[in-house]
Amino acid sequence: MDLKPYIRKTHYYETDQMGIIHHANYIHWMEEARVDFMEQIGYSYERAVSTGIDFALLGISCEYKSMARFGDTINIQVSISDLSVTKMTVQYQMTDAVTGKLRFIGESTHCYFDSNRKRPVSLKKALPELYDLFSSLYASGQDVLPEAK
Amino acid sequence: MDLKPYIRKTHYYETDQMGIIHHANYIHWMEEARVDFMEQIGYSYERAVSTGIDFALLGISCEYKSMARFGDTINIQVSISDLSVTKMTVQYQMTDAVTGKLRFIGESTHCYFDSNRKRPVSLKKALPELYDLFSSLYASGQDVLPEAK
Amino acid sequence: MDLKPYIRKTHYYETDQMGIIHHANYIHWMEEARVDFMEQIGYSYERAVSTGIDFALLGISCEYKSMARFGDTINIQVSISDLSVTKMTVQYQMTDAVTGKLRFIGESTHCYFDSNRKRPVSLKKALPELYDLFSSLYASGQDVLPEAK
Amino acid sequence: MDLKPYIRKTHYYETDQMGIIHHANYIHWMEEARVDFMEQIGYSYERAVSTGIDFALLGISCEYKSMARFGDTINIQVSISDLSVTKMTVQYQMTDAVTGKLRFIGESTHCYFDSNRKRPVSLKKALPELYDLFSSLYASGQDVLPEAK
Repeated sequence: MDLKPYIRKTHYYETDQMGIIHHANYIHWMEEARVDFMEQIGYSYERAVSTGIDFALLGISCEYKSMARFGDTINIQVSISDLSVTKMTVQYQMTDAVTGKLRFIGESTHCYFDSNRKRPVSLKKALPELYDLFSSLYASGQDVLPEAK
Repeated sequence: MDLKPYIRKTHYYETDQMGIIHHANYIHWMEEARVDFMEQIGYSYERAVSTGIDFALLGISCEYKSMARFGDTINIQVSISDLSVTKMTVQYQMTDAVTGKLRFIGESTHCYFDSNRKRPVSLKKALPELYDLFSSLYASGQDVLPEAK
Repeated sequence: MDLKPYIRKTHYYETDQMGIIHHANYIHWMEEARVDFMEQIGYSYERAVSTGIDFALLGISCEYKSMARFGDTINIQVSISDLSVTKMTVQYQMTDAVTGKLRFIGESTHCYFDSNRKRPVSLKKALPELYDLFSSLYASGQDVLPEAK
Repeated sequence: MDLKPYIRKTHYYETDQMGIIHHANYIHWMEEARVDFMEQIGYSYERAVSTGIDFALLGISCEYKSMARFGDTINIQVSISDLSVTKMTVQYQMTDAVTGKLRFIGESTHCYFDSNRKRPVSLKKALPELYDLFSSLYASGQDVLPEAK
């Protein structure tokens, strides 16, 4: 599958008094890129939720490599960096759209849960179609970017 | 009833690249002060909602008088500036806690609605206790601050 | 000049516990659409600022007409609804991109100021090229939408 | 030094459509608690900045342990979990103020830089007074919470 980066223009209200984009906004961008990733793979977040499966965020880790500013456009590359039947890790690499300079790398880890029964589930059992989709993307990512592990 | 201003310290992440608090944050502060106002009058927002009555925002109007900065503390005075059985207008006056300098005045207008039946209601019929409370505050505000009208 | 609406997808993090887009986000969208408007007319905000002229927000007024939700796409039409040598009012009309349903109308009023001398200026004197551009847009809007006044 | 937790009430606009506080807000709270920590130790962020020393965020890592909701009050305990002459790591533990239930643990890593020359500096050389203060807090934290390492 040929995934395009999520392209995001920075907004004025995302700046802070240092004249740069405030760091908390990158957490928003991770979410935007994740939603876009789900749409690109043909299984939107809304569709997953409509089946009764939701995603709970377990953790985030990220590194700020250089500073984005108002007016910049950011390319956000999303990939699945870890996957099991109970949880997944999504990786984000953000670069300046013009210069290619690396701005940010991050990961978010999510577990799957049954939104009616409010408890964790195996995605493989609850929504095998989506699990297989994630698996194939995870496997292909392994081939293409082994050094990124 | 002796209402205290809502006191709000500005946060670093609320600044923008002009070195001032970005204007959208004052809309957040209006909401914070409104929630605090409901608590002070003894009828919290959660309590109103638990009766099945919610508030829908119809509109906002505001004027930015001078600029707040990171580290400033803001006093927010809340009052009811208009009231009917179907809607109310809440007024906000924000001043610097140290100098008293006026930063912002604003108003928000809300209608009451039945959150189960998703339709507007008369607060006087649906929740007379709260309507009477608002009425007494509105009336006393009229006495104390006639010139603010 | 043929101006396109600014198209904005709603984000998950913009929702609130009522399941709708929280009202403060529309203030952000007004700013995004204003920046896009400046770009479309060929005089970006950054370019204006680089000449030493900045815009100070004097006030906002807006009405919430119906509720946007996560996944919606919003079309934002921007126009100049009032203009003088010292200030301007920008009008925003937001509609659902699919149904055309009106979500929000708003206005923001700005004065021009000299960012070095920190004082208000006449745009006609300080940056006549931009003032003339605004004037022609204001005048053409007057022809097309006289009833909107 | 007897440091008090930073106490933070959640705001309505911080909720999302799942009915919980959206995860990005915890990043804001980390910053608020860090600013409060600096004030409590008697060396405010503004004071550090006024000497020409600023802090650049290098990275964040955090775990979401349970979900906060609108109306909750959160206690945020801040400590220095790592310190060198060029950078420091600040640790945050967030618990519900009523039940004590753990909500969130996180860390942020910062380097010091000279805001005029825009380059990293040794805090020990650039601002020895603040470095010694951090050192004593780091050392005392080591005694009190050795298991937290």
